[in-house]
Amino acid sequence: MLKLDICLSPALYPFYRKENEVVIVVDVFRASTTMCAMCGNGASAIIPVIDIEEAKKYKANGFLVGAERNAQRCDFADFGNSPFEYQHEVVAEKEIVFTTTNGTEAIHAARDAREVLIGAFSNIDAVVNRCMALGGRIVVLCAGWNNKVNLEDMLFGGAFYEKLNRIVKVRIESDTVRAAYLLWRQARENLVDFLKQSDHYKRLGAQGLATQADYCLQMNTVEEVLFFDKTDGKIKK
Amino acid sequence: MLKLDICLSPALYPFYRKENEVVIVVDVFRASTTMCAMCGNGASAIIPVIDIEEAKKYKANGFLVGAERNAQRCDFADFGNSPFEYQHEVVAEKEIVFTTTNGTEAIHAARDAREVLIGAFSNIDAVVNRCMALGGRIVVLCAGWNNKVNLEDMLFGGAFYEKLNRIVKVRIESDTVRAAYLLWRQARENLVDFLKQSDHYKRLGAQGLATQADYCLQMNTVEEVLFFDKTDGKIKK
Repeated sequence: MLKLDICLSPALYPFYRKENEVVIVVDVFRASTTMCAMCGNGASAIIPVIDIEEAKKYKANGFLVGAERNAQRCDFADFGNSPFEYQHEVVAEKEIVFTTTNGTEAIHAARDAREVLIGAFSNIDAVVNRCMALGGRIVVLCAGWNNKVNLEDMLFGGAFYEKLNRIVKVRIESDTVRAAYLLWRQARENLVDFLKQSDHYKRLGAQGLATQADYCLQMNTVEEVLFFDKTDGKIKK
Repeated sequence: MLKLDICLSPALYPFYRKENEVVIVVDVFRASTTMCAMCGNGASAIIPVIDIEEAKKYKANGFLVGAERNAQRCDFADFGNSPFEYQHEVVAEKEIVFTTTNGTEAIHAARDAREVLIGAFSNIDAVVNRCMALGGRIVVLCAGWNNKVNLEDMLFGGAFYEKLNRIVKVRIESDTVRAAYLLWRQARENLVDFLKQSDHYKRLGAQGLATQADYCLQMNTVEEVLFFDKTDGKIKK
């Protein structure tokens, strides 16, 4: 039987972690959406790194680097955290080094799981299908914002539960799944409107990035499922 | 202006903590409700302790002790974590040593705040009024279950926001307040029914404790506000 839990912050993951589970790392605004866009546009792999210094070393060695802190592109980097920047003609067949405020930390928190997938609204159906094939216990790990809980990642969890549960009976593993699903039912009619008052949407809007935020809330713009390959620390499709 | 945040787990409190704030520790099922019942029935103070060994030492020194682990009363203790056990004729004018799975740990996590209050549905209006008087930034700190998020404490946060915001304009400090309030609006018509599928309600129900759970969801059965006195580490009214 498929079992689903949702963990609302990387800092809580030690309390949710179980052996042999599949973890879906979600950072809707914007890291996981942007990673989906990279691979959808032909990037061959993503190298997630936690700190800026490491990203700079890669840059010095000729890699393409995406680096963001507090919603802004870092000066030295080729790209920031916008899903629109990683166009096919630039990223196709390339490995992209990537570091963001919250997303890459969540990936590292989950690295001991049986399988680590990258989830976003932009590839949600593909992730649902992969999880159907993988089976067992699945945890949606919300990247949040500096370990604080945010609505958009939680809503992904609720949407994911709804989609999975339409295909197969899913066992809810904790109250967070119930809470996320109840919120998703209120949000799904108009996700953008629902999120307009949320912290992160307002933060992006204030920086003129509302168009990006809206893109991040579109479903199934990308067909690829991304996974974290433990053997070399890269994210691949 | 009053500012409100909600923190869903003691493990997340370091990311929410700010200087000079008021923290309301909430463990609806059942520690904060039970503490309200103790003081409502005349106990003069509560001495919260984290570990069982410390509670045993107090017991050996003649104190009345309430001690619970995983919803069960500890063998050596006078009481468990039921709000019904602490009757007036036993607890009046007495200091009660108290340790529970989740509640006492949350109090210790918050001990550096400007003021630490104990909140439950059973004294929610009294806590709202006290917070109106205290002003500034207020954080509802949900005890949760072994640092996992639960619905009932989150719903207290949503109810608290609604009540406070009816009296004065409250500034929402993070998405968790929005999420909790949206859930509360779905739950408030019938809180018991809403929570029947939740983890903790089911856990209590399976142990024949549904009557206690229902009591914990009644509003304003107690008039006292409890606070943690940093000078001696006791909870008082």
